[in-house]
Amino acid sequence: MDKTLRDELFQKAKQWVYEAGELIKERMNEPLSIDTKSNANDLVTILDKETEKFFIKKIKANYPEHLVLSEEGFGDKLKSLDGIIWIIDPIDGTMNFVHQKRNFAISLGIYCEGIGEIGIIYDVMGNCLYHAKKGEGAYKNEKQLAPLKEKLVLKESIIGMNHYWLCENRLIDHQDMQQFIRTIRGVRTYGSAALEFAYVAEGILDAYLTMKLSPWDIAAGIVIVQEVGGVTTDIFGQPVNMLTDNPVMVANSVISEQIATVMRKGKK
Amino acid sequence: MDKTLRDELFQKAKQWVYEAGELIKERMNEPLSIDTKSNANDLVTILDKETEKFFIKKIKANYPEHLVLSEEGFGDKLKSLDGIIWIIDPIDGTMNFVHQKRNFAISLGIYCEGIGEIGIIYDVMGNCLYHAKKGEGAYKNEKQLAPLKEKLVLKESIIGMNHYWLCENRLIDHQDMQQFIRTIRGVRTYGSAALEFAYVAEGILDAYLTMKLSPWDIAAGIVIVQEVGGVTTDIFGQPVNMLTDNPVMVANSVISEQIATVMRKGKK
Repeated sequence: MDKTLRDELFQKAKQWVYEAGELIKERMNEPLSIDTKSNANDLVTILDKETEKFFIKKIKANYPEHLVLSEEGFGDKLKSLDGIIWIIDPIDGTMNFVHQKRNFAISLGIYCEGIGEIGIIYDVMGNCLYHAKKGEGAYKNEKQLAPLKEKLVLKESIIGMNHYWLCENRLIDHQDMQQFIRTIRGVRTYGSAALEFAYVAEGILDAYLTMKLSPWDIAAGIVIVQEVGGVTTDIFGQPVNMLTDNPVMVANSVISEQIATVMRKGKK
Repeated sequence: MDKTLRDELFQKAKQWVYEAGELIKERMNEPLSIDTKSNANDLVTILDKETEKFFIKKIKANYPEHLVLSEEGFGDKLKSLDGIIWIIDPIDGTMNFVHQKRNFAISLGIYCEGIGEIGIIYDVMGNCLYHAKKGEGAYKNEKQLAPLKEKLVLKESIIGMNHYWLCENRLIDHQDMQQFIRTIRGVRTYGSAALEFAYVAEGILDAYLTMKLSPWDIAAGIVIVQEVGGVTTDIFGQPVNMLTDNPVMVANSVISEQIATVMRKGKK
């Protein structure tokens, strides 16, 4: 993608993200009808859906040839990554949105022929916008993020992951994971994949591991993290597939392969 | 304690907390010498110690008859809760302080004859001060916090706890805990007990469970949570002892006893 187009798309995307954030803030204290999706704790609200429709309307009106891959299913059905694709999670961290009224984010990535060109993660209530354009560095609001630290040892790392890794699961021997968390410095759980990607980009977390994420959870984060030298793979160190769910690891590159080795060892 | 004295102590305490916050912010980007205490991940910095000394100097100069119970050991050695006691954690969440430069708090409680009179939790980088005076409600900055919700079911609760509860531990059968987290809506881990108490007071978390906390971790939080109707006990539902470490539960009163029942069932 040439820089002129990338800059134009970024300006539009950023403007729409801020507008969507305002819409969410205006309506978030209305009584929200809350539905569940894959299970009783997989929540979706009318505002997830309305926000997604807001983006799709804007995109289709301005760029009718672009495609949209999005969480609530109002976008396109994609079979390939050909063309320019907007990959959107209108509210990432819906459980936080419903229960905490904060700690959620709008996540928007723009990919061209499978390459991540633009990533925007907007912590709506923290009024904090993370962004990156490919090759131009990553930013938190107007401040450029520093490259991730080059001196890091696994035993002094803080890793984001949920608690279900320590319970019997389909991916990894949970006893290996119980051992693993005793070898690192600390574990955190924030409940928004997009924000946890942003925290890895900031160096607030050194890695983030998750059993199952969809493309819209990670599309923006991958671009942002890459600009500070971080690495996104599946948990075993292989490339993620942007058309399906993946068990995902994003990490400081110094420890990424070490974590993948632990995961491969514990693989079921 | 009479209201005049409580108000005076609160004004002084709040002023010193803000001053201590400024001292921390001014010096936090200096190279910090980091020591460890009980284990390699139990961190302490020069700023934990300096901040504690700052408080003790202020308190002893203004109230020479008051006692201080504080994390880094520069306070008094207490054998009882007689008199007026300032209970202080100068930097709660030292791991976050060191690794994240945010998500830590100053925690300051003032107790009189064992009764919590004043609680202040200051999220320094979030510039957010939670406080309560006994019987006068709890506040987040200038805004009074609402009473905790009266309609709450355990299966829709979000609970703060660390990941080690799911591993073999000395208190609770870890398989019972693995089962327990599958019966609630979500689990979060933020890494600062004081802030997690504040989040329970805000209703952002419905409960927070921890294996071992010291009086300075909980003294302020107990007062603040009580003002919105929350309950602090040990994890089995018994009163906490403010002179020793405790395994602590703080919770919305609607679910507190239900959680204690689960804990008693899993007790080793």
